[in-house]
Amino acid sequence: MSDKIVIAIDAMGGENSPEKNIEGISLFVKKNINLKDFFFNIFGKEEIISKLLIKHGVPKEFYKIFNTLNTVSDEETPLSAIKNSKNSSMWNSINSQVVDNSHISLSAGNTGVLLVISRMILKTIEEVRKPALAGLWPSKRGVNVVLDLGANIECDENNLIDFSEMGSALYKALHPEETAKVGLLNIGKEEIKGTEIIKKAHAKLKDDEKYKDFDFNGYIEPNKIMDGDSNVIVADGFTGNIALKTAEGTAKFITDSLKESLNESFLSKFSILFSYISLKKFKNKLDPRKYNGAIFLGLKGPVVKSHGATDSTGFYYSIDLCYRIIKGDLMNKIKKNIKPVNANKN
Amino acid sequence: MSDKIVIAIDAMGGENSPEKNIEGISLFVKKNINLKDFFFNIFGKEEIISKLLIKHGVPKEFYKIFNTLNTVSDEETPLSAIKNSKNSSMWNSINSQVVDNSHISLSAGNTGVLLVISRMILKTIEEVRKPALAGLWPSKRGVNVVLDLGANIECDENNLIDFSEMGSALYKALHPEETAKVGLLNIGKEEIKGTEIIKKAHAKLKDDEKYKDFDFNGYIEPNKIMDGDSNVIVADGFTGNIALKTAEGTAKFITDSLKESLNESFLSKFSILFSYISLKKFKNKLDPRKYNGAIFLGLKGPVVKSHGATDSTGFYYSIDLCYRIIKGDLMNKIKKNIKPVNANKN
Repeated sequence: MSDKIVIAIDAMGGENSPEKNIEGISLFVKKNINLKDFFFNIFGKEEIISKLLIKHGVPKEFYKIFNTLNTVSDEETPLSAIKNSKNSSMWNSINSQVVDNSHISLSAGNTGVLLVISRMILKTIEEVRKPALAGLWPSKRGVNVVLDLGANIECDENNLIDFSEMGSALYKALHPEETAKVGLLNIGKEEIKGTEIIKKAHAKLKDDEKYKDFDFNGYIEPNKIMDGDSNVIVADGFTGNIALKTAEGTAKFITDSLKESLNESFLSKFSILFSYISLKKFKNKLDPRKYNGAIFLGLKGPVVKSHGATDSTGFYYSIDLCYRIIKGDLMNKIKKNIKPVNANKN
Repeated sequence: MSDKIVIAIDAMGGENSPEKNIEGISLFVKKNINLKDFFFNIFGKEEIISKLLIKHGVPKEFYKIFNTLNTVSDEETPLSAIKNSKNSSMWNSINSQVVDNSHISLSAGNTGVLLVISRMILKTIEEVRKPALAGLWPSKRGVNVVLDLGANIECDENNLIDFSEMGSALYKALHPEETAKVGLLNIGKEEIKGTEIIKKAHAKLKDDEKYKDFDFNGYIEPNKIMDGDSNVIVADGFTGNIALKTAEGTAKFITDSLKESLNESFLSKFSILFSYISLKKFKNKLDPRKYNGAIFLGLKGPVVKSHGATDSTGFYYSIDLCYRIIKGDLMNKIKKNIKPVNANKN
């Protein structure tokens, strides 16, 4: 079992848990049944979970259930959750990276609590000043890594440099054959644009010959994120979260408007019959479930947060992300990126 | 002529000027020919402009041409432009609010130069700490005002309060029958979320009984901008610019993907015939030209910046915006909003 990728699943987090979580596991197992190089440590109410695993036909060789009594609710604050959470599925799924053989942990539960207890249990890598939350973002050329998405509201230039290094490591873990190309998110391409912190980060990233594990593309404006010329987009957590939610809102507004227009008349409804396959491809390309999963980077073990409201398909994609992260050797890539650089950092 | 709305046009700014600028004027005149309550002071190379006005059939009663020798280029920095610009169409179109009878100025030229010389010529209103750039943003319920879009990279809580007051005045000028509802752009709804500056602005706006010229809706997350529950969205210039450009990029990515999908197969191309009217309505609703025009607020006279790359239709919409701003008595609304509040501000 030691050569397998072991994923710890918090089966009780998110809407419609544990059904969607177990169905997500089942989708992953069916898709990868021939690989047999993965294993699930599943945390939650054993009685329900074992029934669901049988119902969805997941073979026993792929999992072990760890019975836990509590579930962290969405309303809980990090403070109260720490007191109550030691018997929770979330706590134990993360802790299994320390006390058991899990390589990575996945939860669709309360984000605030997950971030706090992940830091408590796994601890921050010594060379990293602040851990960050990274996400996947569609582009014309594939998928970008974007970070920080909200873990750190205020950041200095060294945090932004750490994010560049960790984001590049994640990109390389997911796409070993490609070059990581970092863009600093800013309101203009010119070097005089932006806040003092961004300018300092730009100067350090540009001039410092040590930073050689990725290409530095300079500033990137948010309207160019999806062009794909840069594939690692770096910002402080406030800016990253603003960009993420603006993109979500805009995408929803446009696709809602399109649906409304196409349902407006008999003729346009009729036309959908002809464009059905094209529209399905369009919908599929932009399906947010395919980009489900934010990765908490900078701790001694990786933690993935699935969207709470996603369904079993979305949860499947975040399991697949966990698998690829470990397969791509993320943790060693982060250490390699961070180490030599910080040796000379001040 | 004194009871007419007098709009100063920099005819030489932006791509394809002065043709698109004059064509924009002609579109406006044709649409509003019966009102006769407007007049254009047009600045630029008289010889070309007078020919274009005749070509596009604009009656002489609607305009006066002011011959200017220079044009501010897109590459010019504010510093060099100030030296060279006193004979430019841009400088004179703004200055005509001081030395002539113009009520508002419109340019599609160099944004940086426009902001700097507007401040120089028109001066900031005493009670306003920093002027701001406001834009229009589509929502499910109509159009939002969003500011600051990039004039001020760093803002304190008092700037955000000024923006709330000026943005509300603009919203009321454009929609006299509606209530301005201010939302502070933030990464969460809860009061504990966000930067210290945003929290201070929230506390002041919430508690202070003096702020009564608009409803304060508290924080708004960027994915809710287009819901329309708040119609005046307030942020510092960095955050506002990030949000604006993210929305632009996302919209472009989605509509490009849709186009690509619909052009993919013969059947889907064929289907466009049936959904043509619906898709046209969809396209029309989201047409960025309809939201063309950023308003520079907080100076003693209003200045509107048209997108440089827009066409005559986009330029027409920014002329229409100028007309509605003066018709809606923006300047007095700003003074009314700002005055009583600042009396007790510290």
